[in-house]
Amino acid sequence: MKILLQLAYDGSVFHGWQVQKNAVTVQETLQNAIEALSGQRLPVTGCSRTDAGVHARVFYCTVPAKELSHIALQNLPSALNAHLPDHVVIVSSVLVNDKFHPRYSCKQKEYLYDIYTGSYRDPFCIGRSWQLCRELDVVRMNEAGSFLCGTHDFSSFCASGSSVIDKVRTISAIEISGGLHVVMRICADGFLYNMVRIIMGTLVQVGTGKISPETVSAILEGKDRALAGTTAPACGLYLNRVIY
Amino acid sequence: MKILLQLAYDGSVFHGWQVQKNAVTVQETLQNAIEALSGQRLPVTGCSRTDAGVHARVFYCTVPAKELSHIALQNLPSALNAHLPDHVVIVSSVLVNDKFHPRYSCKQKEYLYDIYTGSYRDPFCIGRSWQLCRELDVVRMNEAGSFLCGTHDFSSFCASGSSVIDKVRTISAIEISGGLHVVMRICADGFLYNMVRIIMGTLVQVGTGKISPETVSAILEGKDRALAGTTAPACGLYLNRVIY
Repeated sequence: MKILLQLAYDGSVFHGWQVQKNAVTVQETLQNAIEALSGQRLPVTGCSRTDAGVHARVFYCTVPAKELSHIALQNLPSALNAHLPDHVVIVSSVLVNDKFHPRYSCKQKEYLYDIYTGSYRDPFCIGRSWQLCRELDVVRMNEAGSFLCGTHDFSSFCASGSSVIDKVRTISAIEISGGLHVVMRICADGFLYNMVRIIMGTLVQVGTGKISPETVSAILEGKDRALAGTTAPACGLYLNRVIY
Repeated sequence: MKILLQLAYDGSVFHGWQVQKNAVTVQETLQNAIEALSGQRLPVTGCSRTDAGVHARVFYCTVPAKELSHIALQNLPSALNAHLPDHVVIVSSVLVNDKFHPRYSCKQKEYLYDIYTGSYRDPFCIGRSWQLCRELDVVRMNEAGSFLCGTHDFSSFCASGSSVIDKVRTISAIEISGGLHVVMRICADGFLYNMVRIIMGTLVQVGTGKISPETVSAILEGKDRALAGTTAPACGLYLNRVIY
């Protein structure tokens, strides 16, 4: 048996999820907290490798159950939170069987991307939004987004250098809501490296009038990263839902 | 003539508004930016002395107009923002006459106080909310708040050691809204030192059932700081509106 932990973290203070040398990551921070409780360095497996600066309103990881069996399951969040810094929190813990994998058992993920469009920067959104500070045409952006819905080869929207061979994914929803904060909600069965951020960078070009919505269809069909827009900054990106 | 600047700042990175030795304050940060533009150390007068950790969604200050006359008034926010750190922003600049004083010309101020009531801390609200993490009875809190509305001597809700003699103020509105975030909105013609935070700390005692709403009326009439609740943390407090 394993324990599935649900957590949330403010990515602005972490160098992403995955353990790396000379940088504070969420995975290592969690391993430290678990070690403080169990006296052992236990493996922690995450549902996604979020980049430095990317946030998670919802994130899942598994840890071995046996070594933590001295703590009642429902008390585990509070026990771990006492050993975690403020910018990460455990909100639930449930038992799952050994076949369950937080990454490969995932059916759908939902990301939000937040752009601030006010005239001047907002001090309360530093590290939490892409502070674009210009107006965006949300109707055009939604029109462009509709070309990306469905099952496609998303090579144009994958960071060059990614080792993934199969770049076909299915986007089940992509919606952009307007206002002072323009927020894109995107759901898919999986995401390529930097896919949400490259889609966002490209849709911003549509929103500012630099390219037409139809151009996004041509970019998709071109299957070439060089055709798409720049990668939007990490700070506006939130992993929002994970469906198993 | 003077220039009235409207600003906003995230108080979590500042030791309050007013210049002090060995600590970064908003006033000093702004004086540095103005000096970078004008070559002179100019006086900056604020509308309020916010404490360390207190936020301002809206804050006003005045600066001499003559020494900044080489910059077009409408360009002043952008020019200053280029010299300011991300956590403070200037959003407007208007000319006012010499009689205008950002503090004494003020008719009303509105503060918000934000309490997070979720089961576990929220990583995205660190330094932005009082993370109380327990439920509050908002109906009872509003009942208690109604006793404070109107013109009263607020001695019980003023930090001991304050040198202010006249402790009579008029609260024109006090409303507490419920939800995951319980937010108190309070408007008055003026506030005593720590008044909002002591009122909040006292109303939380009502919300948790520790004291009755009627007790707040007795605390007010007692005119003794020792009768009221503890001072709520600075991080949940926002100066939200200033009316001239």
